[in-house]
Amino acid sequence: VQNVRTVAFIGLGIMGRPMAANLVKAGFDVAGYSRRRESAEDLLAAGGRWAGSVTAAVRDAHAVITMLPDSPDVEAVALGPDGIVRNAPSGTLYIDMSSIRPDVARRVTAAGAARGLRCLDAPVSGGERGAIDGTLSVMAGGAAADVDAARPLLDALGATILHVGPAGAGQTVKAANQLIVAGNIALVAEALVFLQAQGVDVAAAVAVLAGGLAGSTVLTRKASSMLAGDFTAGFRMELHDKDLAIFTAAAREARVVTPLGGILAQLTGAACAQGDGRLDHSVLMRVIQRLCGPLP
Amino acid sequence: VQNVRTVAFIGLGIMGRPMAANLVKAGFDVAGYSRRRESAEDLLAAGGRWAGSVTAAVRDAHAVITMLPDSPDVEAVALGPDGIVRNAPSGTLYIDMSSIRPDVARRVTAAGAARGLRCLDAPVSGGERGAIDGTLSVMAGGAAADVDAARPLLDALGATILHVGPAGAGQTVKAANQLIVAGNIALVAEALVFLQAQGVDVAAAVAVLAGGLAGSTVLTRKASSMLAGDFTAGFRMELHDKDLAIFTAAAREARVVTPLGGILAQLTGAACAQGDGRLDHSVLMRVIQRLCGPLP
Amino acid sequence: VQNVRTVAFIGLGIMGRPMAANLVKAGFDVAGYSRRRESAEDLLAAGGRWAGSVTAAVRDAHAVITMLPDSPDVEAVALGPDGIVRNAPSGTLYIDMSSIRPDVARRVTAAGAARGLRCLDAPVSGGERGAIDGTLSVMAGGAAADVDAARPLLDALGATILHVGPAGAGQTVKAANQLIVAGNIALVAEALVFLQAQGVDVAAAVAVLAGGLAGSTVLTRKASSMLAGDFTAGFRMELHDKDLAIFTAAAREARVVTPLGGILAQLTGAACAQGDGRLDHSVLMRVIQRLCGPLP
Amino acid sequence: VQNVRTVAFIGLGIMGRPMAANLVKAGFDVAGYSRRRESAEDLLAAGGRWAGSVTAAVRDAHAVITMLPDSPDVEAVALGPDGIVRNAPSGTLYIDMSSIRPDVARRVTAAGAARGLRCLDAPVSGGERGAIDGTLSVMAGGAAADVDAARPLLDALGATILHVGPAGAGQTVKAANQLIVAGNIALVAEALVFLQAQGVDVAAAVAVLAGGLAGSTVLTRKASSMLAGDFTAGFRMELHDKDLAIFTAAAREARVVTPLGGILAQLTGAACAQGDGRLDHSVLMRVIQRLCGPLP
Repeated sequence: VQNVRTVAFIGLGIMGRPMAANLVKAGFDVAGYSRRRESAEDLLAAGGRWAGSVTAAVRDAHAVITMLPDSPDVEAVALGPDGIVRNAPSGTLYIDMSSIRPDVARRVTAAGAARGLRCLDAPVSGGERGAIDGTLSVMAGGAAADVDAARPLLDALGATILHVGPAGAGQTVKAANQLIVAGNIALVAEALVFLQAQGVDVAAAVAVLAGGLAGSTVLTRKASSMLAGDFTAGFRMELHDKDLAIFTAAAREARVVTPLGGILAQLTGAACAQGDGRLDHSVLMRVIQRLCGPLP
Repeated sequence: VQNVRTVAFIGLGIMGRPMAANLVKAGFDVAGYSRRRESAEDLLAAGGRWAGSVTAAVRDAHAVITMLPDSPDVEAVALGPDGIVRNAPSGTLYIDMSSIRPDVARRVTAAGAARGLRCLDAPVSGGERGAIDGTLSVMAGGAAADVDAARPLLDALGATILHVGPAGAGQTVKAANQLIVAGNIALVAEALVFLQAQGVDVAAAVAVLAGGLAGSTVLTRKASSMLAGDFTAGFRMELHDKDLAIFTAAAREARVVTPLGGILAQLTGAACAQGDGRLDHSVLMRVIQRLCGPLP
Repeated sequence: VQNVRTVAFIGLGIMGRPMAANLVKAGFDVAGYSRRRESAEDLLAAGGRWAGSVTAAVRDAHAVITMLPDSPDVEAVALGPDGIVRNAPSGTLYIDMSSIRPDVARRVTAAGAARGLRCLDAPVSGGERGAIDGTLSVMAGGAAADVDAARPLLDALGATILHVGPAGAGQTVKAANQLIVAGNIALVAEALVFLQAQGVDVAAAVAVLAGGLAGSTVLTRKASSMLAGDFTAGFRMELHDKDLAIFTAAAREARVVTPLGGILAQLTGAACAQGDGRLDHSVLMRVIQRLCGPLP
Repeated sequence: VQNVRTVAFIGLGIMGRPMAANLVKAGFDVAGYSRRRESAEDLLAAGGRWAGSVTAAVRDAHAVITMLPDSPDVEAVALGPDGIVRNAPSGTLYIDMSSIRPDVARRVTAAGAARGLRCLDAPVSGGERGAIDGTLSVMAGGAAADVDAARPLLDALGATILHVGPAGAGQTVKAANQLIVAGNIALVAEALVFLQAQGVDVAAAVAVLAGGLAGSTVLTRKASSMLAGDFTAGFRMELHDKDLAIFTAAAREARVVTPLGGILAQLTGAACAQGDGRLDHSVLMRVIQRLCGPLP
């Protein structure tokens, strides 16, 4: 396997921007592309290059990374006429780090393989903070050899890099991750609204809950901002809602029944329908509060 | 406040037995009572005494502790004609550590107060392990002065003692705790069944889930036994089902709407209806599995 | 069996008032009692009498009917020291037509039987309209001979009188009735909100839905007022919410799992928490609308 | 508008077969096509013709009707290279009577319009019985003039023909229909399992339920076969499950929150996962029964 030095990075949003910059800092030659040129400023400041198009970005790259909002975006950039699969040289490592539908990931991998690309689906958790600090968790699906080849790149982006199975497995694990996170937020929201309604010392209650079997990262990190009504993003509710749609569709396809997943997708949908889609996903708290009457 | 030396301990079950023994070890004079005399063996071995009845146990005690299965048990032992409230001397500290309905806890406290007792509701989390090791978490509801008076006793039983509010508040927090725990178990179950159905490396997946925002004590402690199909109790499903009934009733009384609580109470009820009530509460996994077809 | 001529009627609310008057019209001698004397005006105008107390009402009656809001009301009036069971003569036919918990109905029947009363639980459906028109449906639980003895009375109140089983069975069937009604309202609400959101001709849609397998009495009677936002009671939401609590508790006791029942009890609770408890139960529509954003 | 005499009918399944035959009986010249030639036997017996391909069928038709299982089937037959849109003459009336996604219906209509076709989405309710008897309910979306032009055809197939809105509206109404039908079945199932568990006379109970506000076509037509455990299709569970997936996706797209829809899609998915997808949709009863323990 050739050494990866030149990397095309497509999608310079909240997550992609710091990730691309971290690759530059780790010594890679990074050619970035995004829909709007302004998005590349951080990358240029860090020492990266602007590629005028996807085609230009991938033509000479040893590896291509995409970090895009949703399945149709990846389909367009990966499979479109000016896209990665048709324009990257055979042998290129293509790592999609977006959170998309597992079946789309498998389709992209198959299309890439047919042109000699080595494809991974490698979505992440850890949020903007983890992207900036290079401490993301990466769940990679694909061939073991390709995960190994990608490791120098992934090590520059994350603290935990795990190969979780064949093509699509990364997205499958990410979907499960998003189920649990949404569920934990909703459970904490129900518990907090319940406790607040009854004159309990909620701070003391959260302390005792966090110390036992009810403990969770969501409870530790999110309960106090939820109690304070602070829902500044963070991870946008509308993206998490999209992820729940991915989860429920993937579960349905796999004939897996998920009662909590079914109701959670309704609650995340409610948060978006109520106009809170651009706030942090912990705004699920407001859905529960509104079910109990008008917000103060 | 007089010093507490003599303690009546009513209810020597899986939890009560090691708790009573820990009080003896901490230097208290413990008179125990339970429905069956055999249940007192550990207490006697530790150096405690057998009291032939509730009345006999509480007559000369500075403090009374009850650790009973359900609300009607506490009502009978606390409020019955031969019970604590009618037979304990005025000024006695009465600590109910059972997990029961908050409204019953408030009723017991009111009845006790009318006879000069100082009552606390102080349910625990931490399970049999925490009871044996004296590392329970205690969530106490009642007057602050009474919590202070009880602290020497509670310190012999738990590692975290928190005063969470007025009478009933301990039970309210415990109910919230049980909501979150059941919810986390069910979410992990749905995620694991989903991952298993799709050829993912589930052990790697659990590792990456546990390290991010999806992390929880349930995931860390329970996922591997759930994957192995090992549901030996542990905390019995039927007790957790009772707790969910307490939560949903208390939420309803407080006009708090809890969509996940509503569906979770159905799932815990299903586990019991399916004959798994005496297994560990992580057996919720089987409810999800059975929804997907017959178990192998 | 002696002929029933004199009837004590306890509970002259929206339902009880016209029912008592219908008994007078059918030729019975009716002594009424309610918490507030004003409630008896219709009965007096129809030719009935005012009884100053429950005790006075039942002392000389051949039959006693109660029509009260909730289980605790029936417990007080039936089982209290001045209540029916202690003061009605042995052999009296006691028919509780309230909608209450099946276990309370069974308890009342047992207590009555111990004093020689012949007890029936005979809740109704058909609403205020059916009470006025004497076209209620009556679902009676108890001994067949007692249902036969009660038939002349019940025929004055309802169009359909069915013996559905032993003591408590009437309430069990009523609970099932309320599950289905709440569920049909919620389903119609979800369907209407869905159709309104998409530029469909909703009136035409309702016509086609009503004509096929989706047809229901709720759709026929309620859809147009729901679309018009007209939620004047009717059957009060808060009473239906109470009935759902009865259903879920009875289902739990019988180890019957009801996913829709569990979520419906949350939705009826939400309607009450949102301040709409005194409106018609079709106001469930607003819970669905509010989940989709602020009401216009 | 020219008179419709020649009709191409694509899709001769359980529904399509009798529908095509009814068109012949009404005097139309029908050229049928289906994947398997055997499916055309009824049509040929009735006096229709076999068309060797979609292209051949539509080339000389005044109107084209499709009756296919799912969205991808319609996409292939309508939009594929040998499909309707590319091969039917400009001005042809194209009526898709399948139950598919509203967004696909709108896409087909737009593609057809671009080639001069007049397209309707006109799904039906009423089942195999209604197809045979020509008493289907038809919910038509599209231009009013095109519905009028189609009326002679539709009158040969159904008893109720309603224009419910623009392109896609027919499918939207059908999706709402399927939500209500699945919900009514599940509610009746929960009620029946609940009543059976408690020694109620279930036949009497169903009679009284059917006569009041709980009454529905599902209760009248399905309760007795459900009680008898008779789930011979009828309308296949797996098709209804597909329809619930259409409903939840369309609701999500329209930002409409449907808690019952969310949980119902899980229950229909469970029925299929449990291996009952080819039975009648009333087999939802078994999902509820299995939640309560193993089936006898």
